[in-house]
Amino acid sequence: MAKDRYQQGIDKIQELTQASDDHPTGFMDIGEGLKDIAPDLSKYVVEFAFGDIYSRPGIDNKQKVLTTITALVAQGKPQIEMHIKTGLSVGLKPEEIVGCIVHLIPYTGFPSVLNALSVAKKVFAEQGVSVKTPEDE
Amino acid sequence: MAKDRYQQGIDKIQELTQASDDHPTGFMDIGEGLKDIAPDLSKYVVEFAFGDIYSRPGIDNKQKVLTTITALVAQGKPQIEMHIKTGLSVGLKPEEIVGCIVHLIPYTGFPSVLNALSVAKKVFAEQGVSVKTPEDE
Amino acid sequence: MAKDRYQQGIDKIQELTQASDDHPTGFMDIGEGLKDIAPDLSKYVVEFAFGDIYSRPGIDNKQKVLTTITALVAQGKPQIEMHIKTGLSVGLKPEEIVGCIVHLIPYTGFPSVLNALSVAKKVFAEQGVSVKTPEDE
Amino acid sequence: MAKDRYQQGIDKIQELTQASDDHPTGFMDIGEGLKDIAPDLSKYVVEFAFGDIYSRPGIDNKQKVLTTITALVAQGKPQIEMHIKTGLSVGLKPEEIVGCIVHLIPYTGFPSVLNALSVAKKVFAEQGVSVKTPEDE
Amino acid sequence: MAKDRYQQGIDKIQELTQASDDHPTGFMDIGEGLKDIAPDLSKYVVEFAFGDIYSRPGIDNKQKVLTTITALVAQGKPQIEMHIKTGLSVGLKPEEIVGCIVHLIPYTGFPSVLNALSVAKKVFAEQGVSVKTPEDE
Amino acid sequence: MAKDRYQQGIDKIQELTQASDDHPTGFMDIGEGLKDIAPDLSKYVVEFAFGDIYSRPGIDNKQKVLTTITALVAQGKPQIEMHIKTGLSVGLKPEEIVGCIVHLIPYTGFPSVLNALSVAKKVFAEQGVSVKTPEDE
Repeated sequence: MAKDRYQQGIDKIQELTQASDDHPTGFMDIGEGLKDIAPDLSKYVVEFAFGDIYSRPGIDNKQKVLTTITALVAQGKPQIEMHIKTGLSVGLKPEEIVGCIVHLIPYTGFPSVLNALSVAKKVFAEQGVSVKTPEDE
Repeated sequence: MAKDRYQQGIDKIQELTQASDDHPTGFMDIGEGLKDIAPDLSKYVVEFAFGDIYSRPGIDNKQKVLTTITALVAQGKPQIEMHIKTGLSVGLKPEEIVGCIVHLIPYTGFPSVLNALSVAKKVFAEQGVSVKTPEDE
Repeated sequence: MAKDRYQQGIDKIQELTQASDDHPTGFMDIGEGLKDIAPDLSKYVVEFAFGDIYSRPGIDNKQKVLTTITALVAQGKPQIEMHIKTGLSVGLKPEEIVGCIVHLIPYTGFPSVLNALSVAKKVFAEQGVSVKTPEDE
Repeated sequence: MAKDRYQQGIDKIQELTQASDDHPTGFMDIGEGLKDIAPDLSKYVVEFAFGDIYSRPGIDNKQKVLTTITALVAQGKPQIEMHIKTGLSVGLKPEEIVGCIVHLIPYTGFPSVLNALSVAKKVFAEQGVSVKTPEDE
Repeated sequence: MAKDRYQQGIDKIQELTQASDDHPTGFMDIGEGLKDIAPDLSKYVVEFAFGDIYSRPGIDNKQKVLTTITALVAQGKPQIEMHIKTGLSVGLKPEEIVGCIVHLIPYTGFPSVLNALSVAKKVFAEQGVSVKTPEDE
Repeated sequence: MAKDRYQQGIDKIQELTQASDDHPTGFMDIGEGLKDIAPDLSKYVVEFAFGDIYSRPGIDNKQKVLTTITALVAQGKPQIEMHIKTGLSVGLKPEEIVGCIVHLIPYTGFPSVLNALSVAKKVFAEQGVSVKTPEDE
């Protein structure tokens, strides 16, 4: 692992968010707002979460983001909004993101799914993307 | 939706488990062992979970099973064993299943991931599959 | 099951919410606001959650809503507000709803219960109902 | 509150479990096996959980036990077995217990429900009770 | 246990919050705002949570509050704000509170920790306390 | 951070478990049994969990282990057994471990606490330690 883990993490975030070189972490919250109370936190986010884990081979970026979104739906975490943006950024189709969330109904129940889809709807509207409907009824 | 939902669900389970026509639900537990106390339960599993949700377009079978596995890791449910089998059955590579579980460390913590990987190891051993290692160190 | 499942679900929602024929789903959120991104979602809510599950025999409407409220307290889901309304609508006394929530202290701890009771207080105030106090101290 | 809280708790447990005067806590685990390491624990269970909370007015014993069972299904706790026994003891019909658990599918998903019903099946078999089937199909 | 449990609870809250005799429960929410719908609730909070449990020997106040904060991080409960205040009040250093929350990353994942640290940052700012940084980088 | 993170993690584990130089990870499960399917996993456990997080300043080893135990009680994870051993190893008194677990009753409810105390009892028995009872009743 010749490459520096922090740089590897920054590169991965830039790849995931299609961020410019001027602000390479793009829309990803790496905990910089918390540096006054936990100055080492963003280092762990960048080095470990992105430099180590997101940089593993085995699954591709689309699978990684779908996995992330699923975990956040199951847990009801607000970070789902940021990771739905990441999903669109790595090329997931809106219907894949919706498909993944709806697929969770038998495993997490309806309320988690309804709450997550409301967030997806908001992100899709902000970015001007629309969903091809999965069924013609 | 011209096709009968129950038959649609059975067909989907057969497709997911590569089950024979003699026992079309294969290794999938659809709650038949509970028919004495909840005779309508397996109908809901087949019709709703598999006939409706697993049969939706938008994401493919591999994505559906990875999504299912992720939810079960986040929740710590024992059904993860059955769905890891399903993953292999639909053509997920062992390293994709492992990759998905390891990817969850930043979202669920280490214990959930260690517990899920122990189940994966057991299933892989039973089925004689091995994992191509993600890193040469 | 001669009756159409969708109609069965709509009838059940109307019964639970005492909704008018003009707007038969009343105050129940069936996911209609999400039809642009998941057009089949409200069908699953109506057909499966209400047409199948809420329409099962075995327990009555009051028991069904208390069960729902309990699950939502344990999970901390915001949908508890809608289902407290449903509870009043099906004839649960406010002290039954409060009694159910307070009963959860030994199982979910105080914070979940305090949060749920704050929602109940808001709903009771909006609907002008008051609670007969369970103890004279 | 003239009555001693500990005695109130013991009386409530005896009422819930239909226990004999010789062993008034019946099948209820009040943490006595843990007295070597936490000698005050069973006092809290008896005084607070049963003497205070289970003794509140507002909901009846059947509602209290259904509420308890629901919370334990949502959390996946092994104590569900003991409280299904309590349910039968206070006069809940097996189909009410099953009805409550099955009702949770839209809120907790299938795996939690399947796991809880397996426990119910075991308890019903041990006690020789059978479920009137909710549907003739 | 000669002392009245309610008085014991009030004394403990006053000790934890350094509250004045005029308003001895200080900033601690004991459920008084819910007395219209659950008049016995604040009694349980005071008598059981503070009079019994917080008054146990075995661990000191600092350990009790760190334990409380940890549980609330793991559960994502909003009560964490109040208990971070309590932590400062009983003499925990800001870096101990932050240290405890950051220590949870391997057990709860990053999102829970980021959300909790945002609350801590807000409380620290309100109270004008600053964190000695754990690392010089 | 001049020292190698992996070595730092191993040193920390050895310190926590009082392990011999022959087997420096002692009783700590670092995922070595999973190396066939996830060869990089134990590296993350050692480098990140122990080399980074457990090695942070701000809180001492006793606080770190109590925090870990609390998180595992709240989540119901089986890893609690290993970390109760770690607690004894770093010098936590049995009554501190019990005190921390019992303190969680108002936050997680009784079942989580009873389950965790059963594990503590088993570990204490294996190691021949006894608890000074917190109350003389």
